[in-house]
Amino acid sequence: MSALDLKAVNTIRLLAVDAVSAANSGHPGAPLGLAPAAHAVWKNLRFDPKDPKWIARDRFVLSNGHACALLYALLVLYGFDLTVEDLKQFRQLGSKTPGHPEVLDVPGVEVTTGPLGQGISNAVGLAIAQKQFSATYDKPEFKIVDSFVYAFLGDGCLMEGVSSEASSLAGHLQLGNLIAFWDDNRISIDGSTEVAFTEDVVARYRAYNWHILEVANGDSDLEGIAKAIEEAKKVTDKPTLIRLTTTIGYGSLAQGTHGVHGAPLKADDVKQLKEKWGFNPEESFAIPTEVSDYFKTVVAENLKVKAKWQEEFAAYKAKYPELGAEVQRRLDGKLPKNWADHLPRYTPEDKPVATRKLSEIVLTNIIPVVPEIIGGSADLTPSNLTRTAGSTDFQPPSTGLGDYSGRYIRYGVREHGMGAIMNGIAAFGANYKNYGGTFLNFVSYAAGAVRLAALSHHPVTWVATHDSIGLGEDGPTHQPIETLAHFRATPNISVWRPADGNEVSAAYYSAIQSTSTPHIIALSRQNLPHLEGSSVEVASLGGYTLIKHDKPDVIIVASGSEVSIAVDASKKLESEGFKAGVVSLPDFLTFDKQPLDYRLSVLPDGVPIISVEVMSTFGWSKYSHAQFGLNRFGASGKAPAIYKLFEFTPEGIAERAVKTIEFYKGKTVYSPLVAPF
Amino acid sequence: MSALDLKAVNTIRLLAVDAVSAANSGHPGAPLGLAPAAHAVWKNLRFDPKDPKWIARDRFVLSNGHACALLYALLVLYGFDLTVEDLKQFRQLGSKTPGHPEVLDVPGVEVTTGPLGQGISNAVGLAIAQKQFSATYDKPEFKIVDSFVYAFLGDGCLMEGVSSEASSLAGHLQLGNLIAFWDDNRISIDGSTEVAFTEDVVARYRAYNWHILEVANGDSDLEGIAKAIEEAKKVTDKPTLIRLTTTIGYGSLAQGTHGVHGAPLKADDVKQLKEKWGFNPEESFAIPTEVSDYFKTVVAENLKVKAKWQEEFAAYKAKYPELGAEVQRRLDGKLPKNWADHLPRYTPEDKPVATRKLSEIVLTNIIPVVPEIIGGSADLTPSNLTRTAGSTDFQPPSTGLGDYSGRYIRYGVREHGMGAIMNGIAAFGANYKNYGGTFLNFVSYAAGAVRLAALSHHPVTWVATHDSIGLGEDGPTHQPIETLAHFRATPNISVWRPADGNEVSAAYYSAIQSTSTPHIIALSRQNLPHLEGSSVEVASLGGYTLIKHDKPDVIIVASGSEVSIAVDASKKLESEGFKAGVVSLPDFLTFDKQPLDYRLSVLPDGVPIISVEVMSTFGWSKYSHAQFGLNRFGASGKAPAIYKLFEFTPEGIAERAVKTIEFYKGKTVYSPLVAPF
Repeated sequence: MSALDLKAVNTIRLLAVDAVSAANSGHPGAPLGLAPAAHAVWKNLRFDPKDPKWIARDRFVLSNGHACALLYALLVLYGFDLTVEDLKQFRQLGSKTPGHPEVLDVPGVEVTTGPLGQGISNAVGLAIAQKQFSATYDKPEFKIVDSFVYAFLGDGCLMEGVSSEASSLAGHLQLGNLIAFWDDNRISIDGSTEVAFTEDVVARYRAYNWHILEVANGDSDLEGIAKAIEEAKKVTDKPTLIRLTTTIGYGSLAQGTHGVHGAPLKADDVKQLKEKWGFNPEESFAIPTEVSDYFKTVVAENLKVKAKWQEEFAAYKAKYPELGAEVQRRLDGKLPKNWADHLPRYTPEDKPVATRKLSEIVLTNIIPVVPEIIGGSADLTPSNLTRTAGSTDFQPPSTGLGDYSGRYIRYGVREHGMGAIMNGIAAFGANYKNYGGTFLNFVSYAAGAVRLAALSHHPVTWVATHDSIGLGEDGPTHQPIETLAHFRATPNISVWRPADGNEVSAAYYSAIQSTSTPHIIALSRQNLPHLEGSSVEVASLGGYTLIKHDKPDVIIVASGSEVSIAVDASKKLESEGFKAGVVSLPDFLTFDKQPLDYRLSVLPDGVPIISVEVMSTFGWSKYSHAQFGLNRFGASGKAPAIYKLFEFTPEGIAERAVKTIEFYKGKTVYSPLVAPF
Repeated sequence: MSALDLKAVNTIRLLAVDAVSAANSGHPGAPLGLAPAAHAVWKNLRFDPKDPKWIARDRFVLSNGHACALLYALLVLYGFDLTVEDLKQFRQLGSKTPGHPEVLDVPGVEVTTGPLGQGISNAVGLAIAQKQFSATYDKPEFKIVDSFVYAFLGDGCLMEGVSSEASSLAGHLQLGNLIAFWDDNRISIDGSTEVAFTEDVVARYRAYNWHILEVANGDSDLEGIAKAIEEAKKVTDKPTLIRLTTTIGYGSLAQGTHGVHGAPLKADDVKQLKEKWGFNPEESFAIPTEVSDYFKTVVAENLKVKAKWQEEFAAYKAKYPELGAEVQRRLDGKLPKNWADHLPRYTPEDKPVATRKLSEIVLTNIIPVVPEIIGGSADLTPSNLTRTAGSTDFQPPSTGLGDYSGRYIRYGVREHGMGAIMNGIAAFGANYKNYGGTFLNFVSYAAGAVRLAALSHHPVTWVATHDSIGLGEDGPTHQPIETLAHFRATPNISVWRPADGNEVSAAYYSAIQSTSTPHIIALSRQNLPHLEGSSVEVASLGGYTLIKHDKPDVIIVASGSEVSIAVDASKKLESEGFKAGVVSLPDFLTFDKQPLDYRLSVLPDGVPIISVEVMSTFGWSKYSHAQFGLNRFGASGKAPAIYKLFEFTPEGIAERAVKTIEFYKGKTVYSPLVAPF
């Protein structure tokens, strides 16, 4: 290592250590061990600190997000919109340096990490998106996004199943643009990895079809790391795992122990570190001038590269005006004009269809006109109906099964990996709107990734079919009960459960337009009729009145497959002398965003409201006074038989509606929508 | 294969095929391919069909649960409490033969499977429990549970991350009593596994430290399979994976295609199968007499083995009366007498303590007196405080890190694997009460396993610490918002969020006594005071009044760390002239089970109720008229600063309580507990 490199590495290390010390909280161990690798990567990284979303940049993902002081130090040194003052506020409320890297808060952070295993899986998504974009738009004379995805990951990330899923797929997909560094420091929170993690990681990744490199002295061997990066870049048909043997807390008096993992170093320890490395032990957050100058030269080189790219991109646009306009539109984050005209619309005369099938029709209509839509399924393609006729699979050309411009991804039975990869594809930029299919019940397998989509504002879409006991014979293990409640309770997730064709179109309208909210679209296996009174426009309000009465005795509010049963119940009630309004509420989040006036026109004061949904009633009291649902697990049998057993029939609903009317007779009833604060 | 064996295998195959045909729904492909392996395993399985919970039995787990027609056929043939009539009702409502194997519905099913990856991970738990039980109670002259765990799994199970996690741990733990068959049929729902699953499975499992065997012709080579089983049994320090190359839908005209995976065979196809195998093509559900006789002889042999076991167990009990009594007590499913006397109790004078620390104190007190409690953590031991002083780790003795009688399991960073393994340990029997620790937010990673615990009635306990924004600096990626709502909405989960020491004891009292309900105990990182008016007894009701007024102006209902703030708010309100009752509601499920009279005494008619909890308000309208919570993601910073930011302070609560009082002034208020139906 040159003296300057060493100084730079130690500057990174000490900035991270000082940040943790100032916060009196955080993780100094991994930054001390990983600084040389980080330095080696960033020296060669293509980026513009003032334009962190530049599409042609290389991506750097810190999968072991607890080591974020390392990343923040790099962002400061390279001149991103982050300063030493921000480092001093590490882990403080309102700072730009939160306890884990948050994509919305920190300029230069590619994806939010911290929950282990997610970052490396996001990196697989980033690499997929890069390949897909490149195969779609690159020309021999100019590659728009000829970039690499670098990821750091720790033992924890490797132990998590989500990373196993994503890594296996990455190997299958031959993602040569992905280079991952395993921080092999043999320490996790419980102590030595010997207590629980003794597998042969290298052999496992080789089994996944990864290219393996090893750097024995990751603490100091900058040249070895740089060479490994060069080797990795040369292998274009395999992702690379670089096993980097490091010492956690390198340099600290407690190096190599789990004591340096998640707690600040002692003051004396910090002092000796600084002295040892030629820094002033009394000074904190020091950046030697020669180091700061050096980082500026790296940036200057990068800006030259970018200027050249801009020139070439202009030439590309001139030579390929149509493609160029499309790329520019996507970079601007704008959808094709009039794309929504392709959303199908229905009338009650159209024949009943399963909403999963209606979803397929939407995809069939819009995929040809919206090139940024790509998607796949976790090995449930023929059930989810997520692959439209004539699609090309996203596959390595050598497999003969597709190519990298393919827009359909075969995820395998890997829901959690799929979710994290979907987030990575969205994080790539270029307006990607990507979807993934599975049964609604198994979206829960991916809960960790779905939550991060919501937190990170990734506009991904889950095509979640077989959304209730209506799936029938597969039984309770496959029938969701709590799933909608789970995701409705999560901030910033649009959880749609459309009742008919127009509502399916509305759900996709919302999903594809979304720039910051993930969508889950719950779809039926069974056929449903098209409703009188539904339209894409009213459904887009999240909730609306289907059957209106001047002074209803009761309002039935329902979602999805229960709406048409509620309509039938209303008719039955009418024949019994009751006026029962019917409201369809396909998405709580969208409905909640409407003005109170509108919402009260749908669920007004003075009328008892009963909700109907064939799953947990949990949360429905937000919109209703009485709840009819299923607060138990389902049953295996024919769908109509199960619906009948649990009384989700016009009769069953009408009976409960009458009870609700009687219960509230003579009582003052307030809309559940109006609250004291 | 002998003629009789072949007949037996084909009988199994055709029973499965006929069941699927009768249902016109189900999966014939895997049963046709796997019948020889199933026959080979069951020939050697130790079991008593009339005593399916016999502790010394071998366990058979069908991880690819969709192949359940195969398992049901075996259970019928071996004389479990399941008949041909039940097979004819396959997948029908109310039958004993649901669409996936349900442990509560089908005698002889060890664990509920269907959600892929769970069964093989449960099998790891079964193997751990067997080792732990054996190391604890066996004597050289008599091994009480010298048994094997057999598992069948398909490609789907192998793709799922949960199985990767559990398999890696199984290799580390050297579980030589686990023998898994990989049904390598190269077909999944999306078609050939070539589209998404091209990793080298054998190399991966070798990397996990598994013993690998291969049987090239799984369709016919019964002898090869039997030999592999013998080989597997000989390797006692590694789990074995037997790669069994089979033809999905063996014998069918569509064999080897995904067409036979999940749909009934055509009538003609069934006919040609029967003809080809010497069965009457017009007859269904045929069991040739020689086959049925043969299965009877296998059972008879087994009953001899069991009789000998009973004799020896009686001798064991005579020779080791104390141990013998303990084993018998555990087999009877009874806890040690007076165990609950060891639960600590507190008064308001005791100093404030984090509930995670109070959890550690409970474990420290009860672990020595309740030998069936074993537990671990997903690499968060020092944070979860789940390992009590002086514990021995459950480890292979050769590692020098513990032994198999150890009661503390180092799960590594594998929440989902841990959850599925916990279910397996519970499924072993012998009254195991096992717990696993992680941060509350990361229980979501294990949602698939938690759901199956609830569905299967496994009394497992999640020690879920760092339960809110109160964890502070780690920030939004670690701070649960939706987690409690998710699990409260799931049927049959006790979700405790204790507010102080007595409530922690009550939570554990509930968890350890449970025989059919999993528990999640949400625990604080931060210190909490002990409450005036709490006790183990009242907390055990799930909800109770802490501050009672004759005619309160408002009732504040809260959980966990917010209860003591609510108490302070009540005091503040009193100084402002308002009477504010306070209710602690540590567990919805337990509270909901109390008589309505009691519940109404806590949350009565006529009083406006405001709920307070620092996370999603979703679902709280069940118990309150106004909800104060956090319907957004949290923030990174010091915990007190975050609580202040979001106004979870006595002032913030009092202000909203006043608004609630004013809002409901002059209005008739009904208890949210009373519903029309």
